Parts: sequence; C-alpha cells; structure tokens
Amino acid sequence: MKKLINAPADVLAESLRGVQAAHPELRIDFDERVVLRAEPTRQGKVALVSGGGSGHEPMHGGFVGTGMLDAAAAGEVFTSPTPDQVLAATKAVDAGAGVLHIVKNYTGDVLNFEMAAELAAAEGIRVEAVVVADDVAVEDSTWTAGRRGTGTTVVLEKIVGAAAEEGADLDAVLALAEKVSGNGRSMGVALTSCTVPAAGKPTFDLPDDQMEVGVGIHGEPGRHRVPLASAHEIAAMLVEPILKDFGDASGPAIVLLSGLGGTPLIELYLMYGEVEALLSAAGVEVARSLVGDYITSLDMAGCSLTVVKADDELLRLWDAPVVTPGLRWGA
Amino acid sequence: MKKLINAPADVLAESLRGVQAAHPELRIDFDERVVLRAEPTRQGKVALVSGGGSGHEPMHGGFVGTGMLDAAAAGEVFTSPTPDQVLAATKAVDAGAGVLHIVKNYTGDVLNFEMAAELAAAEGIRVEAVVVADDVAVEDSTWTAGRRGTGTTVVLEKIVGAAAEEGADLDAVLALAEKVSGNGRSMGVALTSCTVPAAGKPTFDLPDDQMEVGVGIHGEPGRHRVPLASAHEIAAMLVEPILKDFGDASGPAIVLLSGLGGTPLIELYLMYGEVEALLSAAGVEVARSLVGDYITSLDMAGCSLTVVKADDELLRLWDAPVVTPGLRWGA
Repeated sequence: MKKLINAPADVLAESLRGVQAAHPELRIDFDERVVLRAEPTRQGKVALVSGGGSGHEPMHGGFVGTGMLDAAAAGEVFTSPTPDQVLAATKAVDAGAGVLHIVKNYTGDVLNFEMAAELAAAEGIRVEAVVVADDVAVEDSTWTAGRRGTGTTVVLEKIVGAAAEEGADLDAVLALAEKVSGNGRSMGVALTSCTVPAAGKPTFDLPDDQMEVGVGIHGEPGRHRVPLASAHEIAAMLVEPILKDFGDASGPAIVLLSGLGGTPLIELYLMYGEVEALLSAAGVEVARSLVGDYITSLDMAGCSLTVVKADDELLRLWDAPVVTPGLRWGA
Repeated sequence: MKKLINAPADVLAESLRGVQAAHPELRIDFDERVVLRAEPTRQGKVALVSGGGSGHEPMHGGFVGTGMLDAAAAGEVFTSPTPDQVLAATKAVDAGAGVLHIVKNYTGDVLNFEMAAELAAAEGIRVEAVVVADDVAVEDSTWTAGRRGTGTTVVLEKIVGAAAEEGADLDAVLALAEKVSGNGRSMGVALTSCTVPAAGKPTFDLPDDQMEVGVGIHGEPGRHRVPLASAHEIAAMLVEPILKDFGDASGPAIVLLSGLGGTPLIELYLMYGEVEALLSAAGVEVARSLVGDYITSLDMAGCSLTVVKADDELLRLWDAPVVTPGLRWGA
C-alpha cells in the first residue's frame, strides 16, 4: 500500500487536521468529526447537514461553506457516521428554522441519520431528510436496499444550499431537494480497485485487462466486468443506461463527470468530450458541467457520470454564489 | 496501461476537445493546440502566455481566464510546445501592450519560447520572458540546465495575471514575475511512476517498498530513492530542503501542496497538516494555501510542496478575482 499516511487508524483524524489548517473559514469538531462553517448559522436559516463514510473527498466536508452545507459528519473510511456524530452536527447548526439531512442511500447511513433525526426531534429540532438514490447500475447491492446514492448528491447540496442561503423555509428546501434527487441519474466505471488504509490491500481484484462497469463508490460490484475498452466505448456504457432510465432525457441538464481519485484531469476531460457528444446527440442540452474530482473512492482509477435534468429554477440556484473548498464561484 | 483514452496518439487533441466542451468561456485553437480566452485581450492589457508539455493538468490550459493567463500552448505529453505554437499563442493575444512568456525551466521549453519570442519580435510584438526554476531537488538534470521549474509557476501565473488585469505595463509585470519566481521553492516526492500514453508502460520502475524523493514532474530522478516512509517523515523530506535553501524562511508565505495526479484529496489534506505544522514551527506564516491537483504528472502518486514568500503586494494580487477552470474565486 503506497499512501501519504501515517498509521492507518489515524487517517481520518489527521486528514481533518489538514483540512482545518488549510481552511480557516471552516471549524472542525475533532471529537465528533464534524466539519462546520466557522461562522454560526444565521438565525432563521434552514441548516443543511450531510455526511457519510470518508474516502469520497471532497464530498462532504469539502462542500461545507456559504451557499452549500452547514455541516458534514465524517465517518471512518467507507463507514457511516454514527447517530451521535449526525446529532452533534444537527444540534450545532440548527438556528431555529429546522435542519435538512442529505443522505446517500446506503443502509448504514439511512439508519444512522434516521436515528439522529429522532434524537434531534426529541430535543425540539425539526429535521427532514432527503435520501439520494441515483445510481442506475444496480437496483440492490450488498450495502443498499434500492439504488445507491452517488453524484447527484453533489448537485443537490449545491442547489439546495443556495435556496437555504436565500431564506427558503424547510418545506420549500425539502421539496427542492426531492426534485433534484428525482431528476438525477448516475453511473460509474472502475479501471482499478481502491485500497482502504485499514485493509492495506485492494478491496477487490481487477485484472489488468478488465474493468468494472457500474461500480459503486466503495468498490461494490457493478453490472458486469468487461474487457478494458476505449474511452469512446466506455462513454456509451455510462450514457446509455442513464438515458434509458430517464426515458425522455431531452432538455437542459447539469452534468458532472467526477474522477474516482486516481484518474488525472487529462483523462477526465477526454472522457467528458466523449460523454458530452453522446448526450448532445440524444437531445440533452448540457447547460452546466463540472469535470474533476468531486465524489471519489479513495485512489480508484475511473470515473462516474451524473446527469441532473434542470429547469430555470435549478440553473439559477446552481449559478448562485458558493464558497467551499470543493466548489467555489460567484463570491 | 489502464487509462480513459482512445488511441494514445489522440490523447491531447481529444482532451482539448473535452476542455472546449466543458468551458465555453475558453476558445481552443485546435490546429495550433492553444487554449485562449473566448474574449479577445482588452486593448492595452499586457498578455500572459504560458505553456509546456501536456500531462500536468490543470497547468497550463486550466489557468487561462480572467485574472490569470491569456493563452497556453499545449505540447504533446511531456513534450515542449513548438515555437510555432508559442508564436501563434503570442500573436493571438497581443493587444498592443506586449506579451510576457511564462516558461518552466526545461531545455526544450526555454529554447522554443526564445525562438517564438524572436519571431514575434520580428513581427513587431514586444515579448519578455520569465523562466521559473524553483525545484530545490537537483541543480541540473537530464532535461534541464539549472533547477527545474515546477509549482511556483502556478502561483506566479495567478499573481502576475492579477497585475496584468489591473493594467500594469510590461516592465512592471516582468519585474513582478521575477520577484515571485525568486521567492518560490519546490520539492516533490513520487510514490509511483507515471505512464505516458504513447509509451504504454511506467516511465520508471519504483519497487513497492520505495519512493523517489525530489522527483521531477516528468518522472525525472530526484535526490534519492528511499524506503517508503510515513507522511510525517515525508513532510520533513519536502520541507527541510526548502527551508535550507531559503536560509531565512520566516514571514508570510503562500503554500501550495499539489497532488501529482494519482493521489486523492484525503491523503493530500493529511500531508498538508504535516507540512503546515513543520512550516509553522520554522517561523513560516502560512498566509494562503492551496491543496489539490494543480501541477500534476499524469497518474503519478505523490505530491509536491511549493512555498512562495509573500508580502502585502503579493497577497493582495493573490486575493484578486480569478475565473479559470483550475482556480476560481472572487468573481
């Protein structure tokens, strides 16, 4: 295992230390492993809390800041945050207008966020939740009942974060979150496995001449293992299941092509060119795009494609100012 | 070789196609392989042109935009752009106030930018050049007389780009570029080799239990090959040669910790925590920082550290608005 780490057990805590050193605009609760904005939530603003296993950086801690999340609970690598962590995050950012939990659809995450919501409710905090389940690769998996939650989460956190910043109330924020969640589809491909520090060896074996189509962000098996293909062919393997699932995919969309951690930008842009051509040919109007590492799987080589159908409301909120370590524009 | 590519010979052209699809605010001259702003240079503004071999994305094409570069000439992977490419870039962006060439110190780059400058001068364009040679690892190398040019280039392009945007004339822009260049030091470490698409196999062999300290951004040998060490130990191997070279490193600085392409953010932030602690202990006041992939070596695992001593002028220009694919804030 070749990684820039010290003891495997210390990876999360030490990485958070680096985030704090690099980002004085954030505040880290090191006991609870929660990333917060340095400034407390503005009174009356709906607060957004997300979180999940670590290893997907910049998601979620890197999306805390003005115009996006208020807090993110960081579980151990590929491990759900505990209810206590989520509760601590929720209590820290509630400013009287309630809290939206943004949860990716993995069994542990869903259970632990639900438990935290109940505990928060018992303390008088109103909590609603949106569960993102956008991965069209598989209907159920080892870690999930129903579809897995992936890249749509990033787009949702940006758009809903803008609405909360503008003063939308919790009902409106929840409705918007459900809309974005329903509009998003994702599909990923792995060229290599990833290596969890505590395990010290690759999560799965993938021969030199094969790739995993429909891989999950923790290295869960996908739809099929196939011979290594060209970027052009891979683009079709990502785009077609998404288009098929949409039925009618025509019209404006926000498109995210995320690296999985071990694939450099020169390849991601090449891949984006292939993907964009296929989407355009199918009548998808790519209104906004993001290419880079936004939702990763440690050091896995590969990429995931997310398409979120958008209308004027979603595009306006997408364009609103955002100041986070992972996404920043307009301010 | 596991990469998201089609034919190895088409990687650069197809990656540029993706950049164009993702960034309508840029214009790509596909014949000359030059990345330009979509809008022509404002009359009377000094234009900044950089470039170099591809494989270091987002550098340089990802730093074209308001507040940073006007154009970047993209050579083939790890290959200097030709004089014709640099000349085309120079002519395309000159707006009557002259052009600054920002060159990393590699023999081919220096020669080809010089030749382009002479050709441009013959056409009546005033060109000045700054050559960045900030890598403290080695004094000479296979590809370089003198020190290699690395991460300080990113900081220089940002700061000098802000000055040019504000209307500084070519003499002032050149003086500022020399100042930033003189203030910067870098050092890198590779945990793995990289694989050039056209070669199809790793550039060098690096056993599973070793790393290359002082590696160059094309996989050039560094100071020494040593057993794989902890992040804490690696941080010292990067920080100490930089501090030693500065002599007195105390005072404010801009610090860039760049991944080399194959190392994910969770490791980079952990590494940054280690580096920042050592720098602070040595009296360096980290006034601004960047952690992420800014100057890469294809899919190499590892990182490079850049420290640029800064004063109020440099920090003010660093904070000025920038809108590029690779760096964006304040606008």
